[in-house]
Amino acid sequence: MTPRNMTEEKMGTLYGVSLGPGDPGLITRHAWDTLQRKNIFWAYPVRNKNSDSYALDIALRSGLRLPTGNTALVFPMTHDAEKLAKYWFNAAQTVHKILKNGQDVAFLVEGDASTYSTFGHLARTLKALDGAARVQTIAGVTSFNAAAAQLQMPLADVDDTVAIIPAGYGLPVIDDLLPRFDTLVLLKVKPLLDEIIDLLHGHGLHEHSRFIEKAGSPEERIVHDLATLKGQKVNYLSLMIIKNPQRERSEVIRGCRKKNPETQSP
Amino acid sequence: MTPRNMTEEKMGTLYGVSLGPGDPGLITRHAWDTLQRKNIFWAYPVRNKNSDSYALDIALRSGLRLPTGNTALVFPMTHDAEKLAKYWFNAAQTVHKILKNGQDVAFLVEGDASTYSTFGHLARTLKALDGAARVQTIAGVTSFNAAAAQLQMPLADVDDTVAIIPAGYGLPVIDDLLPRFDTLVLLKVKPLLDEIIDLLHGHGLHEHSRFIEKAGSPEERIVHDLATLKGQKVNYLSLMIIKNPQRERSEVIRGCRKKNPETQSP
Repeated sequence: MTPRNMTEEKMGTLYGVSLGPGDPGLITRHAWDTLQRKNIFWAYPVRNKNSDSYALDIALRSGLRLPTGNTALVFPMTHDAEKLAKYWFNAAQTVHKILKNGQDVAFLVEGDASTYSTFGHLARTLKALDGAARVQTIAGVTSFNAAAAQLQMPLADVDDTVAIIPAGYGLPVIDDLLPRFDTLVLLKVKPLLDEIIDLLHGHGLHEHSRFIEKAGSPEERIVHDLATLKGQKVNYLSLMIIKNPQRERSEVIRGCRKKNPETQSP
Repeated sequence: MTPRNMTEEKMGTLYGVSLGPGDPGLITRHAWDTLQRKNIFWAYPVRNKNSDSYALDIALRSGLRLPTGNTALVFPMTHDAEKLAKYWFNAAQTVHKILKNGQDVAFLVEGDASTYSTFGHLARTLKALDGAARVQTIAGVTSFNAAAAQLQMPLADVDDTVAIIPAGYGLPVIDDLLPRFDTLVLLKVKPLLDEIIDLLHGHGLHEHSRFIEKAGSPEERIVHDLATLKGQKVNYLSLMIIKNPQRERSEVIRGCRKKNPETQSP
């Protein structure tokens, strides 16, 4: 055995532990077991040194206890790429030091670790720092899946098409997508809420649209009648699910492989 | 208390219990607790009277025991709307009889109950049958969230756009969506697999695409080099995740409400 192999074997694994959007009941058994393991180190994201961690809050509300080995990792609310890269690097370095001591690290993630999560950045930066670093992702429930369940509004029925976009791309983008998809999920609707409500009225889709804030959390709020939301303050963690029963559908190719599929339009 | 209220109080609740795509570790704590409750009746979907239930298989592989009160519900593999409606009605009637006896029913769902699931049909038909029927949906992990975790390929990074469509809509539809989204999830790629691989080559996106079969199950298969798949037989439960790093992005509106958002293009 070479010294290199010995080092690799001793090195811990970074786990991306998805906790679901807020209801501790939506934590998976795999995530739950991972967080309860002895000697696992918890790392959790915060926006700045003094802020709370929503991911940590979910874990603690589930009844789990914060282990002695734990650290906050700062992921600031900025879109300055250079600044972000610096914070990602610092976070990856902190994690790398713990892994090198042979300890596994659980990075706590709200929602699903692959879906609009900081975990992707952390994992990539760690791998860039050390190609031998081991990473595992534990999948979880997303905010929009939890929202659909709470609303009892299927995200997708058979043959449905779904688009998920941050609402911040703006009204013309939303306007373009509305007729094309059976379900449109708009994330972070806060900055454009009133304008989106007007747009949905224009399309006659307001009655097929729902608003949900902090899905699955104790502060969850569901609004069926969007008009009542106009001018209201809403949380940053709010989304809309818009169904379009008017979408024109083309044929769907099923079953065995077809060698000459006919030309189709969406 | 009126006799009507008494009946309503006695009536059980139908739970849509999401089990995740195949790995029993991806069952949520809420689903797990629901299935372990005493006196809960299990209902699980089968394609015909003699076929196995994939959802039931996930539950049994988790170590849970099938309770005495259990029934298969037939949801045939057909797209004949009239035939389907008949089977949904039969299934809803079976469930309704059990609920009326005051017993709760857990309907076992692979993946997430709101995402391409028969549960939506069952719940709607039950509500049509009896407006007083109580339904709850327990959200779960979807196949594509589990696939992204296994692939360590984020489904969406910050500001990313995602589209999810059944591949059967055909090549022109896929061709149209590829440049528009950061991530395209193609479900049920089996019938068009070779043609899709050729299309991705044409877009230079084959290196950013992954194939995954039966995500999270013991038979899971991941293919990174799509060219090796051509002409191969694949399972019905197979999907592709395609990333498009070339997508041209517009500005994203953030933070506070803007009263005059500028016109934007996708």
